[in-house]
Amino acid sequence: MEQLQKLPGIGAKGAQRIAFHVLKNPRDDAEQLCGAIRDVKERVTYCSTCNNITDADPCVFCTGPTRDQRVICVVEEPQNVMVVEKTREYRGLYHVLMGTLSPLQGVGPDDLKVRGLLERVGAGGVDEVILATSPTVEGEATALYLARLLRPLGVRASRIAMGVPVGSDLEYADEVTMTRAMEGRRDI
Amino acid sequence: MEQLQKLPGIGAKGAQRIAFHVLKNPRDDAEQLCGAIRDVKERVTYCSTCNNITDADPCVFCTGPTRDQRVICVVEEPQNVMVVEKTREYRGLYHVLMGTLSPLQGVGPDDLKVRGLLERVGAGGVDEVILATSPTVEGEATALYLARLLRPLGVRASRIAMGVPVGSDLEYADEVTMTRAMEGRRDI
Repeated sequence: MEQLQKLPGIGAKGAQRIAFHVLKNPRDDAEQLCGAIRDVKERVTYCSTCNNITDADPCVFCTGPTRDQRVICVVEEPQNVMVVEKTREYRGLYHVLMGTLSPLQGVGPDDLKVRGLLERVGAGGVDEVILATSPTVEGEATALYLARLLRPLGVRASRIAMGVPVGSDLEYADEVTMTRAMEGRRDI
Repeated sequence: MEQLQKLPGIGAKGAQRIAFHVLKNPRDDAEQLCGAIRDVKERVTYCSTCNNITDADPCVFCTGPTRDQRVICVVEEPQNVMVVEKTREYRGLYHVLMGTLSPLQGVGPDDLKVRGLLERVGAGGVDEVILATSPTVEGEATALYLARLLRPLGVRASRIAMGVPVGSDLEYADEVTMTRAMEGRRDI
């Protein structure tokens, strides 16, 4: 139970439930769980090109024959790759920064995978870099910082749209989001 | 308590609390509350131009000397005017539709204040109509419907941006919103 409680989202009660669940169920199930946990640490690594998690280096996105090599979507964390991928619309490559610029927490450009991105763009063949960091203060600052670095390389830098989320009621839009939604309006 | 429970968001417990509050406090407070409630019904009406709530007809937006008469922002309900107004960026006029198209609930164009909008645009002097209905199915359908009616009048019709809300983490963006955020990306 002590070990289980170290995991995120599992408290004392949850750890107890899981412990008793393991106790009650067959030994095979427990072995499979152990195997999966070990596998993660042994087989899953980071792609040396885009820093996404992968079990083969380079990853499926970097080597995918159907992926558009001219577009790179920059995200903060590996789990954000899944968010963009779920749209089923994006067919380009990715680059995971492994965080955002955060001077207050001592995270500077050298702590992120910025150099790798610039090398990939500098190698040529890239038309557009989509900066898909979160619409937070840190994410915005990181996007602006990267845009400034990318401009001299002659590549188009774009930022994902901020606005009212699809399916939401306008009544619940905050001022800043509503301001962005008005600024970013498009002809229909 | 029976009367109070008819109000939205007030249940049995809340009604009881309010009733005892009124009982305990001075008669003057009760009179003021009654006065405010009566005033709403007597003094607040709808603007004959934009259908926003107002105590003077036409309303402060329609007659405001600092408001830009060339832009009309179309919203569903009077409370949405407040949402746009809170951005402190928009200086144009408004037009409240009093609902959205909803065929399943029997709401057609004639049940909304569509004709008034077309008359205002048709009278000239308007360059752009911003369709700021909610990013829901009904709101989108209404915006597209209006855009089709406005096009022959030679006015620019625009739609507020859909995308990731400012301050949110990308991790929580749903697929449809993320798709819109990617589609609506802009150069920086």
